[in-house]
Amino acid sequence: MGWMQGFPPPPDKLITQPDSVYFSFPKLRWSVCHLREFLPTEEIGRGLDAPVPLDYPEPHDFADLRQQIDALTFTPQNRDAEMTWEESLHANYTDGILILHRGRVVYERYFGCLEETGQHAIMSMTKSITGLLAEIMVVEGALDETALVREIIPEIGDSAFATATVRQVMDMTTGVKYSEDYSDPTADIWRYAAAASPLPKPEGYEGPDGYWEYLRQVGPEGAHGDAFHYKTINSDMLGWIISRVSGKSVTDLASERLWRPMGAEQSAYQTVDGKGVPFAGGGISAGLRDLGRLGQLMLNMGELNGVRVFPAEVVKNIRAGGDRSKFGDRFPTIGAGSYTSQWWVFHNDHGAYAARGVHGQTIYVDPTAEMVLVRLASFPQAQNGLIDPTSLPAYQAVAEFLMSQD
Amino acid sequence: MGWMQGFPPPPDKLITQPDSVYFSFPKLRWSVCHLREFLPTEEIGRGLDAPVPLDYPEPHDFADLRQQIDALTFTPQNRDAEMTWEESLHANYTDGILILHRGRVVYERYFGCLEETGQHAIMSMTKSITGLLAEIMVVEGALDETALVREIIPEIGDSAFATATVRQVMDMTTGVKYSEDYSDPTADIWRYAAAASPLPKPEGYEGPDGYWEYLRQVGPEGAHGDAFHYKTINSDMLGWIISRVSGKSVTDLASERLWRPMGAEQSAYQTVDGKGVPFAGGGISAGLRDLGRLGQLMLNMGELNGVRVFPAEVVKNIRAGGDRSKFGDRFPTIGAGSYTSQWWVFHNDHGAYAARGVHGQTIYVDPTAEMVLVRLASFPQAQNGLIDPTSLPAYQAVAEFLMSQD
Repeated sequence: MGWMQGFPPPPDKLITQPDSVYFSFPKLRWSVCHLREFLPTEEIGRGLDAPVPLDYPEPHDFADLRQQIDALTFTPQNRDAEMTWEESLHANYTDGILILHRGRVVYERYFGCLEETGQHAIMSMTKSITGLLAEIMVVEGALDETALVREIIPEIGDSAFATATVRQVMDMTTGVKYSEDYSDPTADIWRYAAAASPLPKPEGYEGPDGYWEYLRQVGPEGAHGDAFHYKTINSDMLGWIISRVSGKSVTDLASERLWRPMGAEQSAYQTVDGKGVPFAGGGISAGLRDLGRLGQLMLNMGELNGVRVFPAEVVKNIRAGGDRSKFGDRFPTIGAGSYTSQWWVFHNDHGAYAARGVHGQTIYVDPTAEMVLVRLASFPQAQNGLIDPTSLPAYQAVAEFLMSQD
Repeated sequence: MGWMQGFPPPPDKLITQPDSVYFSFPKLRWSVCHLREFLPTEEIGRGLDAPVPLDYPEPHDFADLRQQIDALTFTPQNRDAEMTWEESLHANYTDGILILHRGRVVYERYFGCLEETGQHAIMSMTKSITGLLAEIMVVEGALDETALVREIIPEIGDSAFATATVRQVMDMTTGVKYSEDYSDPTADIWRYAAAASPLPKPEGYEGPDGYWEYLRQVGPEGAHGDAFHYKTINSDMLGWIISRVSGKSVTDLASERLWRPMGAEQSAYQTVDGKGVPFAGGGISAGLRDLGRLGQLMLNMGELNGVRVFPAEVVKNIRAGGDRSKFGDRFPTIGAGSYTSQWWVFHNDHGAYAARGVHGQTIYVDPTAEMVLVRLASFPQAQNGLIDPTSLPAYQAVAEFLMSQD
């Protein structure tokens, strides 16, 4: 692609601020691997120990598996013509793809801006890490899911969040006003982005400064508990809650509870606002294989490398899913799914569930096939609804192939 | 200190942009460990292998050594009263101190904002890493130290750098106009900082954008080769030169040639300008022990953990020092020293040389005592001239103590 190649790069290959430039296609094809070069960040430290290597087949068997998986065919949603697995990688602007079967890597490829030592923006998969940390605290008894937000954070004041329960925040069933339509210039997302920006506020700016000030002035919309509304502010509210209760930033929590115990091979990082608060709704960048470790930790019900990292009940709760009656029909590619603890649950035959982020990011866990799949991508459009048709059936095809190998 | 404690921190403990706030004492006592939370950065990757552990004495012996070193006394420069080693640590606002003797850690302590998993700003010690990479390229024949800058970077144009040799840039004997007096609001350092800032340029800004644009418009002052002038722009000029010649950023070079082969336990990072160019004159933050590994690599003449990382001639050249007749008398705490390949050479009895950064950063290598000492600090004032009087004699005292142990 040639982005940012050369010392200096030619002007037409240079990528700079603001985010409307660096995070628009095709420049985002480079930027998804380089967010820290545009934004202040906090480390999610891997610690100082040796990484715990992933398990690989013999090279010959590994090459063989790749060939077989590349040739798998499937029928995309809403289409007639079949597609091969390998074609789907290109159709989805895949930057990195890793598949583990029974804890062993069976497929791993890098494209675009990603390499094995790189970190890729995982976008809203960040929410699933925030939610997992919260679920761990709930199961361990450190966080009361029935508590109201205002009992934990009194200064939330008159915000619509004040009277929501922790569980409603975790499952995004709060009744809070927040529009995330990127095509509407008056959408709340832009006010949120202005509050969150670590750059100095423009002259005359009078809005909230930082994620947490924004959350204190959110208005109501509908009633808490009525329905699932996918709104990023819930994730940042949850990040605030778990930081207040634990006395630790979400980056430190992710390091202590996940990255260190899982033997990660790279530290991850998380973007921060102008007051050093990590973006709990979308700020993490991480290595492909470390996300595979995280998925494997989920598949193994909280155990990895022979160590229990968190109680099995954590995954049991997430796998069980949220209230399907509240899920609605705004996610046709997922169908009658649910969302709980910031994870997407498909309620399909295989009991699959996933972390998902815009532009094609996913950790997809299939307990029946004992498969973990991580896909990092830079699809031109944000919406996963455009990416799922050539992704979800492809994942199912690989799952079935792996089950047929037994 | 309480900085940035709490979720959120109380207003009087919150540290934010701009740098005149976050990098002024006493806030800098926290910020020196958290630069990435204010600025965009690039990783200096450690790679994915297991770190190579440092060698430690048995715990009892280690504790014993610490007690003995803490009690050592010395006479500060220009003072009569003696001081203990331990008192000197506090006098110098030490955040981290590590001493290796014959490759084994004999002393290691953390204070203030630093812990063993943290990274600390090393300020102008960054120059010594840029200079070391350049010296490696010269010795390996990849970089011609007699070449003129304009032969390597034609677009340097009419800049005063155009007619300087690579060696003059490496040794800071160029005749270039650049004033670095922080107390003068019209000093060039402020125009340089404005060019380098990764924040969007203010309305109406017409100055250079980024380090390299600045370097293209530097005027002359004096003649190349006449005298040593400590000017940061030489280091960034050198960073540009080695990137152009190698086709790699200084962060990638530092990763490939230093951080990976030395078995670093943490990745380091480097701040960047608005075009992604790393600050080769001062942008690195790194872990205390990894800087110890770098010092040990120098002491061992380019070998570490039984592996030759670069030719011995590299260190031989640096140890030999620069032209002392050009050093002048502006560094009275150092005396009749020299500066070469961006390292300070003391030309003392022990043949010591050092990387040095403002606010008290140093890697101090004493070949006679076979000692490497790393000190990271957050001294209120920038100038090492204020810090040396209670530092350099203290280092000498430890060196003599270690030699007496043989």
